[in-house]
Amino acid sequence: MKATVHVMLKDGVLDPQGEAVRHALGTLGFAGVDAVRQGKVIELDLAATDAAAAEAEVKAMCEKLLANTVIEKYTVSIR
Amino acid sequence: MKATVHVMLKDGVLDPQGEAVRHALGTLGFAGVDAVRQGKVIELDLAATDAAAAEAEVKAMCEKLLANTVIEKYTVSIR
Repeated sequence: MKATVHVMLKDGVLDPQGEAVRHALGTLGFAGVDAVRQGKVIELDLAATDAAAAEAEVKAMCEKLLANTVIEKYTVSIR
Repeated sequence: MKATVHVMLKDGVLDPQGEAVRHALGTLGFAGVDAVRQGKVIELDLAATDAAAAEAEVKAMCEKLLANTVIEKYTVSIR
């Protein structure tokens, strides 16, 4: 199965990378960009065949390695 | 409108970051992870109200700044 994990900074946590992108877009002439948040996307190819088991395993991966849950939130989708 | 941009390395381009994640997951005891690819996700809040115009503008942002189109591919979704 394939799993896609999105890891974003939690709302309220300062995102200097996103802010840098917003500023750069303004410099390049793109007006009307109010806010930018940047995060990570991680695509995993899993040997598991059961969707529920795969989702539970990927959530454990997020808690242990993929996301810093103090400042980041994550979502998991399984295909 | 809100736009979400996914930027991933093109297929065939070596992804050392994803490979490092795959190795770390194995070290942590997660078996059955065949492949990992890591990319970026960028969420933009746009002042534009027309979806087609917004998508065209975000694609221009990708070509100019957000993606290195020599080695990266991107997808844009507008909500």
